[in-house]
Amino acid sequence: MLSSDIDILVCEVGLRDGLQNAIGIMPTEIKKEWIAAQVKAGCREIEVCSFVPSKVIKGMTDATEIVAHALKYKNLTVAALAPNFQGGLNAIQAGAGKVSFPVSVSEAHSQSNVRKSRLQMIEEVRKVCQFRDQFVKDKSLIIEAGLSTAFGCSIQGRISDRDTIEIAVACLEAGVDELVLSDTIGIASPSQVKRLFKSVKIEVAEALSGVHLHNTYGLGLANAYAAIEAGATALDSSLGGLGGCPFAPGASGNIITEDLVYMLESEGLRTGINLDALLECREIVKRGLPDEQLFSYFAQVYKLKM
Amino acid sequence: MLSSDIDILVCEVGLRDGLQNAIGIMPTEIKKEWIAAQVKAGCREIEVCSFVPSKVIKGMTDATEIVAHALKYKNLTVAALAPNFQGGLNAIQAGAGKVSFPVSVSEAHSQSNVRKSRLQMIEEVRKVCQFRDQFVKDKSLIIEAGLSTAFGCSIQGRISDRDTIEIAVACLEAGVDELVLSDTIGIASPSQVKRLFKSVKIEVAEALSGVHLHNTYGLGLANAYAAIEAGATALDSSLGGLGGCPFAPGASGNIITEDLVYMLESEGLRTGINLDALLECREIVKRGLPDEQLFSYFAQVYKLKM
Repeated sequence: MLSSDIDILVCEVGLRDGLQNAIGIMPTEIKKEWIAAQVKAGCREIEVCSFVPSKVIKGMTDATEIVAHALKYKNLTVAALAPNFQGGLNAIQAGAGKVSFPVSVSEAHSQSNVRKSRLQMIEEVRKVCQFRDQFVKDKSLIIEAGLSTAFGCSIQGRISDRDTIEIAVACLEAGVDELVLSDTIGIASPSQVKRLFKSVKIEVAEALSGVHLHNTYGLGLANAYAAIEAGATALDSSLGGLGGCPFAPGASGNIITEDLVYMLESEGLRTGINLDALLECREIVKRGLPDEQLFSYFAQVYKLKM
Repeated sequence: MLSSDIDILVCEVGLRDGLQNAIGIMPTEIKKEWIAAQVKAGCREIEVCSFVPSKVIKGMTDATEIVAHALKYKNLTVAALAPNFQGGLNAIQAGAGKVSFPVSVSEAHSQSNVRKSRLQMIEEVRKVCQFRDQFVKDKSLIIEAGLSTAFGCSIQGRISDRDTIEIAVACLEAGVDELVLSDTIGIASPSQVKRLFKSVKIEVAEALSGVHLHNTYGLGLANAYAAIEAGATALDSSLGGLGGCPFAPGASGNIITEDLVYMLESEGLRTGINLDALLECREIVKRGLPDEQLFSYFAQVYKLKM
């Protein structure tokens, strides 16, 4: 749900999607500093971690501690990713205000990503929703499904809009509160974003809040603009475009928070985020991940003007 | 005028706008190789040079020779920039099929860029058009005005849509055939592009063909998409985003041809350009400008897949 003083919710996913693919492991204390700085810059939602086994993804063993830290900040939605029922329980028990599950539209990607079929994954999500309904007192807890590979899959290829709509509807029936369309491999084009967002919206109405985009082919902001035009009110992004594949600098990270916020504010859309303060977060990330390259056109121009 | 087999005309301006701001001077023979490779890739229009005094811009002393070379290619529109009447005459005498004049909407930028007021500049353009009408037999010669700083000016600040419309109409009355809106400093945002393009289009109809965008804040492709949505059928771009300020890599070059073509083709819009062949042009440019960095998300991903 959007606060009335902003038009678009920019959710920082650098601590989760970014760190999962970064070179090096960011120390817990620096993660906390980063969260503090994002909050100071006006960020309203941060996906702070994922609740995955440490043998699968390194650098997330401090998930519970990070959630606890983030909960100190009022007005911050503390989101966490979970790949299955157990991860979901852990996230809820840690106190996350939003738990996000990756539900693939591509069967092949589902098997590869969570080692479950799409329908098995939806059953995991259903169990989490049932757990929430029966045992969680805090009714503000949000269960979200991120519809992975909604725009295309590197294993399976083309994904039909019809499949995405079916999975979206199945997630809603399973009890999720929010849906996001994820361009997992960064293959989407602007018209496709607009078309699919509108098509899904017709079926699931306000449950569809936004999109999760990657900048693989440099179309990230064009796709973000198309999503906004189609009615999206929430966008995921990553500070410095963090998360790029180490073998292709800048090639497959999330869309860049700094540039996204710059674009939205230029468009007259309020994000609540202060760009000067946002740039200060970069210094923290650089300290925590000295081998990782941070991107941002806005940051480069800003630096020149100093 | 668009050929019937393409939807969007991508005009390569790397040889002009790119080289003007590049580190180093590209040898004439390599410019010719580059033009040949662009044509082979399917490029229909190239701004091959500018007719400016060599004391103002180095690296354009071979302008006449480059135009003569480019004229060898059938189906290629050979465009050249000229900053005044004399430059326009030189371009026409060299045989350019299109001569483009930068006409600033910002008075301050006009003085700084061409050392003339906006009205004086329009008079220069009018004289060129009169010369064409009286002395040029080839009626296919196109005189174009690029409306510089239409989206904002780093000296004067905000530019009103009304001013841009007035300058556009004045250029038409002076006799130009085509108009392009130029985001000289790369300050435009997508909605602004869409709004201004539509507003100018209402006044000048088909004379307005497209936009010339820079990628200063990384919004280049988002702006290009917005322009297409507003009805633009021609877009300038530069191979590798060439033209970036040497003090801000990637910060102020033109939009990147490779990524633009990728986006347009992904959108189902035919450019006539073959992306594989386009990438071969990069090798030529690297040879001709060894100190210049070339950008492109598409090229990076493509390299990984090889």
